[in-house]
Amino acid sequence: MGVLIFVCLFLKAISSCQASGTDIALDAKATLLHRIDSLNLLIYTCLLTLTVLTIWVFKHRRVSWLHETGLAVIYGLIVGAIIRYAGSTNQITHIDVHPAPDTNYNLSVPPDVLRFYFPDKIKISGGDAPVPNKTYAYSFRGEIVNIEQNEIDLKATFDPEIFFNIILPPIIFHAGYCLKRKYFFRNLGAILTFAMVGTALSALVIGALMYGCVQLMPASLAASFTFLDTLYFGALISPTDPLTVLAIFSQLKVDVNLYAMIFGESVLNDAVALVLSGAIQNYEKRYSNDGGFEITAFLGAIGDFIGIFSLSLLVGAFIGCLTALMTKFTHVRDWPLLESALFVLTSYAAFLIAEVCELTGVVAVLFCGICQAHYTYNNLSSDSRNRTKQLFELLNFLAENFIFTYIGVSMFTFPKHHFDPWFIIAGFITSALGRAVNIYPLSFLLNLGRKPPIPMNFQHMLFFSGLRGAMSFALAIRNTVSEARQAMLTTTSLIVIATVVLQGGAATHALAYLRIPTGQGQNDENEALPYRDVRSPPEMGFGLRNLDSTQQTSCDRERGSGEGVSGEKARLARLWGAVDSRLLKPLLTHARPPLTETLPAFMSPLARILTTTHQYTQGDSSLRRADSDSDLCIDEPHPVPTSIDPQQLWPGLVDTRISVEGITGSNI
Amino acid sequence: MGVLIFVCLFLKAISSCQASGTDIALDAKATLLHRIDSLNLLIYTCLLTLTVLTIWVFKHRRVSWLHETGLAVIYGLIVGAIIRYAGSTNQITHIDVHPAPDTNYNLSVPPDVLRFYFPDKIKISGGDAPVPNKTYAYSFRGEIVNIEQNEIDLKATFDPEIFFNIILPPIIFHAGYCLKRKYFFRNLGAILTFAMVGTALSALVIGALMYGCVQLMPASLAASFTFLDTLYFGALISPTDPLTVLAIFSQLKVDVNLYAMIFGESVLNDAVALVLSGAIQNYEKRYSNDGGFEITAFLGAIGDFIGIFSLSLLVGAFIGCLTALMTKFTHVRDWPLLESALFVLTSYAAFLIAEVCELTGVVAVLFCGICQAHYTYNNLSSDSRNRTKQLFELLNFLAENFIFTYIGVSMFTFPKHHFDPWFIIAGFITSALGRAVNIYPLSFLLNLGRKPPIPMNFQHMLFFSGLRGAMSFALAIRNTVSEARQAMLTTTSLIVIATVVLQGGAATHALAYLRIPTGQGQNDENEALPYRDVRSPPEMGFGLRNLDSTQQTSCDRERGSGEGVSGEKARLARLWGAVDSRLLKPLLTHARPPLTETLPAFMSPLARILTTTHQYTQGDSSLRRADSDSDLCIDEPHPVPTSIDPQQLWPGLVDTRISVEGITGSNI
Repeated sequence: MGVLIFVCLFLKAISSCQASGTDIALDAKATLLHRIDSLNLLIYTCLLTLTVLTIWVFKHRRVSWLHETGLAVIYGLIVGAIIRYAGSTNQITHIDVHPAPDTNYNLSVPPDVLRFYFPDKIKISGGDAPVPNKTYAYSFRGEIVNIEQNEIDLKATFDPEIFFNIILPPIIFHAGYCLKRKYFFRNLGAILTFAMVGTALSALVIGALMYGCVQLMPASLAASFTFLDTLYFGALISPTDPLTVLAIFSQLKVDVNLYAMIFGESVLNDAVALVLSGAIQNYEKRYSNDGGFEITAFLGAIGDFIGIFSLSLLVGAFIGCLTALMTKFTHVRDWPLLESALFVLTSYAAFLIAEVCELTGVVAVLFCGICQAHYTYNNLSSDSRNRTKQLFELLNFLAENFIFTYIGVSMFTFPKHHFDPWFIIAGFITSALGRAVNIYPLSFLLNLGRKPPIPMNFQHMLFFSGLRGAMSFALAIRNTVSEARQAMLTTTSLIVIATVVLQGGAATHALAYLRIPTGQGQNDENEALPYRDVRSPPEMGFGLRNLDSTQQTSCDRERGSGEGVSGEKARLARLWGAVDSRLLKPLLTHARPPLTETLPAFMSPLARILTTTHQYTQGDSSLRRADSDSDLCIDEPHPVPTSIDPQQLWPGLVDTRISVEGITGSNI
Repeated sequence: MGVLIFVCLFLKAISSCQASGTDIALDAKATLLHRIDSLNLLIYTCLLTLTVLTIWVFKHRRVSWLHETGLAVIYGLIVGAIIRYAGSTNQITHIDVHPAPDTNYNLSVPPDVLRFYFPDKIKISGGDAPVPNKTYAYSFRGEIVNIEQNEIDLKATFDPEIFFNIILPPIIFHAGYCLKRKYFFRNLGAILTFAMVGTALSALVIGALMYGCVQLMPASLAASFTFLDTLYFGALISPTDPLTVLAIFSQLKVDVNLYAMIFGESVLNDAVALVLSGAIQNYEKRYSNDGGFEITAFLGAIGDFIGIFSLSLLVGAFIGCLTALMTKFTHVRDWPLLESALFVLTSYAAFLIAEVCELTGVVAVLFCGICQAHYTYNNLSSDSRNRTKQLFELLNFLAENFIFTYIGVSMFTFPKHHFDPWFIIAGFITSALGRAVNIYPLSFLLNLGRKPPIPMNFQHMLFFSGLRGAMSFALAIRNTVSEARQAMLTTTSLIVIATVVLQGGAATHALAYLRIPTGQGQNDENEALPYRDVRSPPEMGFGLRNLDSTQQTSCDRERGSGEGVSGEKARLARLWGAVDSRLLKPLLTHARPPLTETLPAFMSPLARILTTTHQYTQGDSSLRRADSDSDLCIDEPHPVPTSIDPQQLWPGLVDTRISVEGITGSNI
């Protein structure tokens, strides 16, 4: 009965249906846009799948002349060219508009939104569809430089914001989370010198040389570049990318100190370059405000640099410690899913908080990652340890391959490229010179005070491993409003592609040519087993670690290689070690000795509050271990056999994207 | 020396620096927009963190009157209200524009891009900054209904596309990947009836009743709704959300058949509703094209529905099987990171391929998930099994909490709400009626042919568990161009919030009131240990599984509950079982018997090609197991003790978002 009534109602109603023609056309347009979005994502998904499969084939056949980042770039280039020249089916309609006569607008910036009454003074060739009388909003998109190119705007490109807010944070966090702290801190002086002083010096040299080059070029180009523009270019092209070289290093078991220097420098100089470019932009603003007094603005920019870097560092470290406290004093570890979610969310919050406060999220998330590894990791349940490591490893892998694929594709499809041969040639030469100025003079200075000096072949290798990567590209694509910025983007993309494909492919030969010692960790395989046993002692159950050699996570790979390097710790590092093991570790983790033993007597009420039952009830073995754990290693919270040096338990985690590389050695 | 020259160059150059005022202002604006983006993300990150912590407190204190989805919604509402009423610091500038006099535009759709020459006929109160002479592009955003509301447009809202392309796929994939296949297939008839027939019936009833109600309302409202609009509303409000109810079911160990019916129905009806709403939209288009012949269009819509659903299913299943083949015939399992990446990428590709082909990605990704669990999972290395399960569990948890938080926040901040009390009241009443029409008549019909009939209290519980959730909201927010659609969004949001908070909170009491048997899996804890031993036999090493009870993954939770239910498999299911175990499993996985034994003799050359060495060399125990594995369970590829029924090894994975719920029982 009821069904019949409905059918009648349905048929009656359907005949009275009068959907507006424009609404339907808009729906159709929205559907089309959705399909284009999906197609874009699909292109990258398929490219990544293809890259993964090819990486497998290359690994299987032990191809070494092309690395996987190079592979991703090349696939990207091919597909980008196909998209570009395969012809567009997607037409973008546009009209020119003028403001309404009675407009009262008095800013020097174009408005955010245009309100367009449609149809208005347009002759619509009507008849087939009713014409709407509606007002539509249009939002600001950017400057139109070349009107013809506008139609490929929608092809396989993404909002640059995505790189900064979605793609970079997991990469940088993973670098911090898997930092091999032991060798990092042993080479801290060199790393900081190269990363802080060297990057600034390199940016200045590249900026100045480029400004000189630009002045020698045809007048039209020279006019569009200011010195700040070229300095900005210097800042964005200075950071080096660790991926390719380190993957090869890891495979060939290169000297751990060289590895630590290259990894540490490239992690830190990403952060430095980002802060530096921000300071240059701020200088631009400040300069334009007060007109002529440059020195103040210049000092202001230096102040900005130092202030933003250290504040960002503090934000990241604070969030890391906060997470450690949350995981220590709550029982959230009883629900590993909640715990993992909390870990991921707070780590991402560190990035976002810094960005919201106009600091540098990348620096914050890097140091947050270091703190999470150093403190929070000890409080996590073994399920969460495993899950967070595997999660970030996978995210890092996907994000990095995505970014390199995108560099390739966008070379053809991004509409805001500006090819200028002189600028490109100058960019290649000056970026190599900038790297040389970073490495050789600073190595000379460092060798004056450094016990085991940095040998010449290491210096050459440091120079050679100056590939440019994700951070340079992300900075270049962030702002492409002016012609100068577009020329920078093009040059940066080309430098990234060339260095990754050519230098990355030649890295193995460079190692051999420079006679860098490889295969240091030959005893790695032999030593591996006892460590593994220690890591999963019987009282932990069968949990967490996968001892099958094919299933080792990459973080495990670096243990034990080059244990013989003698310590050369700075006094500062030793002081920090004392603070860390006597105050921070007992406060933030369940490590022994508890605060009740390390703090002075008058603070014992506070110390008792901040010490967990777990800390009191731990066995003596962990007490002993924590005592000797002053070289900044993560200690395992489980008792270990006494015959094994606790320092070797968890010297830190180094991971390059290519965990799979590490496995190659033990598996084939 | 060189440094000095650079400093001189620097100082000289800096004084010649003349950045354009507008460029700097645009940079500043871009920075501001970036900060607002970051702030939006930060708000949700903090809300999710807060939700996670509160969930922990609730679990710790065993609070049952408010569930975590309700919690997420309530936090969202509070923060949304704060954002809304705390006052805006962000001003959006806008001007009205007219087309240029010589425009030649003849479409009935507004153009995609406006080109705006700035400054043009605007009096700029100049002097402090140079005025640019540039053309800017503005892209289409949407209709302006209420000009005053436009300024909160930027507050804590996201592009609806994000829900469909980023948030939904992992949720739906996880549902398919962790489907408890055994009970799902036992109740397949009821599930399909409720999901396919019931959802369509419910949509039709709600649509017709709403159309009647709208006709009784004030004329202004009645005019803006067509019957297709109300039918679309019926389609989008019909799908039910499993999360809250199933979390409680899982905690209380409710009857497995009821569980399977509710889970299966809610997973499938999401897909059905999506296809249905697409068919209604297509009908709209077709109708508007040929003017009057309704029956053709109506039949076309039904054809669309069936065609899109089955094609999407095929796409998903095909990609799932393709992944199985890739993991079977390559040795990518030697590199677990590559393997996991491949798994994630192909699964997402299934969604995107369907979307690009104008099919329904949700249906594709659901069936892709089922195939991945059924075939590919068996080929994966144990590291990848663990990693993919944990990854999707975490993604699912975050995505679901995000969507419920967003529903709460957007109630206040989304600018396109249209509160119409009559429509809202009618929406609440008809959505309850629609659910009743779905359950009671269909249960009556099903009971005519069903061996153990669905008892009355189960029917009441099925009715009661008709919470609305993510899919309804995602469909409603997808198109908010017209006033009718905006009223639908508001009503849908309110229905989701009310059902999740109130019905979700009352579910425990409803179970008690209806005397639904709970605690079925009481022997779960006792049975759990032997299964665990089986899952991690000694020859696997210490790998994969975390046997500490706190670290069980949620997928493990459901094993063993209610094993006593007798089979009532349809003949079709048995046929499928035979095809599956004799053809598909041997083809797609390493399972025994190999194709060489199951295929007819004349196909043996082909069969030999498609059989791996691994399949030949497996022990007899796996042969026996595969034979008895006809009830569609995933079989473990490792030999098992003979005393344990192979069917119990891996009856399938059920997971609700609340894996942590499952752990509660064994842990507190």
